[in-house]
Amino acid sequence: MDSDFGMVRELSELQKLRSHYQPQLPPCLEGTAVRVEFGDASTAADASGAHAINRSFPHTYGQPLAHFLRATAKVPDAHIITEHPAIRVGIVFCGRQSPGGHNVIWGLLDALKIHNPDSVLLGFLGGSEGLFAQKTLEITNDVLVTYKNQGGFDLLGRTKDQIRTTEQIDAALNACTTLKLDGLVIIGGVTSNTDAAQLAETFAERKCSTKVVGVPVTLNGDLKNQFVEANVGFDTICKVDSQLISNVCIDAVSAGKYYYFIRLMGRKASQVVLECALQSHPNMVILGEEVAASNLTIFDITKQICDVVQARAQQDKYHGVILLPEGLIESIPEVYALLQEIHCLLRQGVSIDKISSQLSPWASALFEFLPPFIRKQLLLHPESDNSAQLSQIETEKLLAHLVEAEMNKRLKEGTYNVKKFNTVCHFFGYQARGSLPSKFDCDYAYVLGHICYHILAAGLNGYMATVTNLKNPVNKWRCGAAPITAMMTVKLYGRGNGASSLGKPALHPATVDLKGKAYELLRQNAAKFLMDDVYRNPGPLQFDGPGADAKAVTLCVEDQDYMGRIKELQEYLDKVRSIVKPGCSQDVLKSALSAMSSVTDILSVMSSH
Amino acid sequence: MDSDFGMVRELSELQKLRSHYQPQLPPCLEGTAVRVEFGDASTAADASGAHAINRSFPHTYGQPLAHFLRATAKVPDAHIITEHPAIRVGIVFCGRQSPGGHNVIWGLLDALKIHNPDSVLLGFLGGSEGLFAQKTLEITNDVLVTYKNQGGFDLLGRTKDQIRTTEQIDAALNACTTLKLDGLVIIGGVTSNTDAAQLAETFAERKCSTKVVGVPVTLNGDLKNQFVEANVGFDTICKVDSQLISNVCIDAVSAGKYYYFIRLMGRKASQVVLECALQSHPNMVILGEEVAASNLTIFDITKQICDVVQARAQQDKYHGVILLPEGLIESIPEVYALLQEIHCLLRQGVSIDKISSQLSPWASALFEFLPPFIRKQLLLHPESDNSAQLSQIETEKLLAHLVEAEMNKRLKEGTYNVKKFNTVCHFFGYQARGSLPSKFDCDYAYVLGHICYHILAAGLNGYMATVTNLKNPVNKWRCGAAPITAMMTVKLYGRGNGASSLGKPALHPATVDLKGKAYELLRQNAAKFLMDDVYRNPGPLQFDGPGADAKAVTLCVEDQDYMGRIKELQEYLDKVRSIVKPGCSQDVLKSALSAMSSVTDILSVMSSH
Repeated sequence: MDSDFGMVRELSELQKLRSHYQPQLPPCLEGTAVRVEFGDASTAADASGAHAINRSFPHTYGQPLAHFLRATAKVPDAHIITEHPAIRVGIVFCGRQSPGGHNVIWGLLDALKIHNPDSVLLGFLGGSEGLFAQKTLEITNDVLVTYKNQGGFDLLGRTKDQIRTTEQIDAALNACTTLKLDGLVIIGGVTSNTDAAQLAETFAERKCSTKVVGVPVTLNGDLKNQFVEANVGFDTICKVDSQLISNVCIDAVSAGKYYYFIRLMGRKASQVVLECALQSHPNMVILGEEVAASNLTIFDITKQICDVVQARAQQDKYHGVILLPEGLIESIPEVYALLQEIHCLLRQGVSIDKISSQLSPWASALFEFLPPFIRKQLLLHPESDNSAQLSQIETEKLLAHLVEAEMNKRLKEGTYNVKKFNTVCHFFGYQARGSLPSKFDCDYAYVLGHICYHILAAGLNGYMATVTNLKNPVNKWRCGAAPITAMMTVKLYGRGNGASSLGKPALHPATVDLKGKAYELLRQNAAKFLMDDVYRNPGPLQFDGPGADAKAVTLCVEDQDYMGRIKELQEYLDKVRSIVKPGCSQDVLKSALSAMSSVTDILSVMSSH
Repeated sequence: MDSDFGMVRELSELQKLRSHYQPQLPPCLEGTAVRVEFGDASTAADASGAHAINRSFPHTYGQPLAHFLRATAKVPDAHIITEHPAIRVGIVFCGRQSPGGHNVIWGLLDALKIHNPDSVLLGFLGGSEGLFAQKTLEITNDVLVTYKNQGGFDLLGRTKDQIRTTEQIDAALNACTTLKLDGLVIIGGVTSNTDAAQLAETFAERKCSTKVVGVPVTLNGDLKNQFVEANVGFDTICKVDSQLISNVCIDAVSAGKYYYFIRLMGRKASQVVLECALQSHPNMVILGEEVAASNLTIFDITKQICDVVQARAQQDKYHGVILLPEGLIESIPEVYALLQEIHCLLRQGVSIDKISSQLSPWASALFEFLPPFIRKQLLLHPESDNSAQLSQIETEKLLAHLVEAEMNKRLKEGTYNVKKFNTVCHFFGYQARGSLPSKFDCDYAYVLGHICYHILAAGLNGYMATVTNLKNPVNKWRCGAAPITAMMTVKLYGRGNGASSLGKPALHPATVDLKGKAYELLRQNAAKFLMDDVYRNPGPLQFDGPGADAKAVTLCVEDQDYMGRIKELQEYLDKVRSIVKPGCSQDVLKSALSAMSSVTDILSVMSSH
């Protein structure tokens, strides 16, 4: 563990400027009086899993949604929390580093101190390992001063991502008890928030008074569901990656002689690739979700790309840019099956040089067909979640290699005879994670930090801080909290998560919705992107002027604001109740009954599907 | 060749904003009256090569320097060019694409049209191939509107970089004659400007009236000499790369578990690595020049890195960031010798699978020692200038591989026993070349474009446009022109350029001066960088606010302004002449004689070394 965590450091001029930026708060969180309104009990979207979730989380499933409103909001059942005793809160970075993470800590500290200057915020040093070992740093404004609006997780660092085994959960409970924590805030993605829910349940069961809160921070942008519209870090990552992709596009068209194969982050879900494609308009995009849905083989994909190369050559174009997610390799059915065989043999302790000979005949044939560098990478031990070491597998090089071989074949056969086919490969991963966060991520993370405080002040356990209506300006944002268990699903036939977790309720990465509006937008433009080189260059991340306030395309095209609609529905129901009071006319009652009966009939039918 | 060159295109918001940016002109180029002053006849810095240069360039060697001054400047011999007939000028992108190149065209067009609206600027489509084939696009303000201050070379494109063979030179001459060009402006780096000088000489010899002008545009930043302080594109590339390196540094310290090996552009010279290191403060930097000067073997370099890893582990640090140039592999003596053997066999037509068996015993031993992926890359055919295909050789992976092996060995021996050693490798090359140019590069390129016009208006041939005093604000910049031949040197024992060009005068890449101030600055901080993680994060490229006007560290620490000093000396000489006029007192004459005699004695002694 690094001994330099939390050190005050020298900032560059731009960093200094950014460190003075004060994120805005939505009106509902301004001042010291915030009104909390509880909605109806929440339920899992996947009704079939609800029973299993309820059984695994008896103490924390079915809790109501919470909305945070202005003190002046006229809502009958909402109440203002007036007591703000000094509390002690711990905060820990869990998942992979994501730009904006530091601002969650800042937002939480500000909210704590505004409501009671005696409250204490402890940061755990070195991620979950620091939590287990009770290594803390008290967060003060002085500590934060050179970390406000800055990238990375280097204020506190992070190590392992898991809080899952009995020993780990015991150590976490022990830390919270010993440190007398009223709240524990866990910053991370899908996995870390599943762990947060489990921890909340265990704490409740064991009568530990520490409340656990999760915050959606993951650059993969795959912690999405009806309550969560976006994740901290995704906006920045996509802007930095899009800048680089656009630079490559301009490079491609300038020299007119290279095909660029660019791999981006995104394991189970291709959200980053989709967003970057909509921002930079490369020629071709291969989403893991498309490949999985169409059961495309690696040969199908190769052929598709070769056909594109050939079609472009007919228009005198010998360059192009192709995006793919690091998770693509696991989305290709036959490669996935091969990986499963390899991992199975590795788990049995078979040594790497013997694996090839113990594969099933078809897997062995595929394995031997692949170029040596990829074989070596496929033989790497799987990660802790049983998925392949995707950042180490150069899928972009594999595709470039296969496409090159196929183009040479076509050249020999005379079906392609124009020019040499050249490729350049890139992986844009680690170079974006430490970026200065975009204005959106600064604001979003800071607001989420504030919400964490209000969740704890309301005494809630096992909730995730949520902001909806994000595509609108900050003053229109809606703040709330949703039980993490309501976001869970149960996968019976899971892929990649390994047998151990099958059937266990968990948050799962939200894959790109092939029926969604963002994907639709990509499809509509696909032909134009493919042939016309309508490359778009958003330029480097700016903090002022044009582009500085731009939001993710995938966020803006979707018609989300689920929490806003839940509230809208509630208002309708309240209105009906207030109009149809005892004493109203027969006619009013009659039409109310008729309308409500038809509404409930329709909804019953729809819900049963 | 792409048919879409020069097409008006849709710009993003940020691109639009940038396209409206109007670069400043230094006072000497404002308005329509510019005074030209000729200095003394120029000479090559390397006196020993002067004879050879003179022999190869009888028509263009020894021409005077030119300074462009304000019309109001009081300089006795300078004259204002008052005749501005309409002229026809061609312009061509030659070298690798470099951010800012478009602004040279813009500056030239503006200068042409200000002085005579009937002048015509023709852009050659598709680089030197377009020149040979006489494919042109007339440059107008309408054509330029979406390319002003934009990256890439996509307005005109570029193909091959050479104008060298008799056929190529004949084709160029033919194009200039057919198109009735008064001037041909060649945009590029060391190689292209050598070609420009050759073309100028040939044109002069063959009485072709087209004057040839070179412009120093190369992201490598290695076209540096007493007349040229900086190259268009270098500032932007270093800013984009430094952003990414800084992001990686923050990533490294956040997770505390990876060593990052980052390869940057820079073939013969490590200028980009040096500048990026001074901007981002990584832990370690390996310059090709250091390795060559100290004759370090690949084992020495590996050991040095391993010792660093071990020293840092003792301070509980398990992460780090190491920079190296793509040219490093050729700077390592034994690898260079191996590459020479391979290239020699390839030239003899030996097939790739037979090369290993035909190497000399020691080369074969080294070759077999290297991991397979590098072997394959070393066997690639050399580039047109006989150097290895450096962008394809993953030297960063080779070093990571060797360091990992050595750390594992130390782990087994018990000399290192702390933690697993993990590496991540990056190559930052193509993703920066297409970037929006920095303000500096926009200004510098635009001013150089203007100077090209004045060079042609003054009827000069074989000159390069120069701006000095660049580290100061634009209004202090000095504009001039220097004969390209005066920048040439003759290498008798060259490396990497192949036998054919040995002994031929040429511009050579300026390597990092190991006695220079910039390198000194790096050395002074090396120990701190190595152990203390004083990572600096300049952030993404900005166009406004802090950092937007920052200039390259290597530009600012050096005490350059050679052209300024040449002018200063001239002023002293003029003053002496005006004070010591016939009629002055005996005493004045006596002291003048005594002082001048001592000055000339000292200079004679110094020049003879």
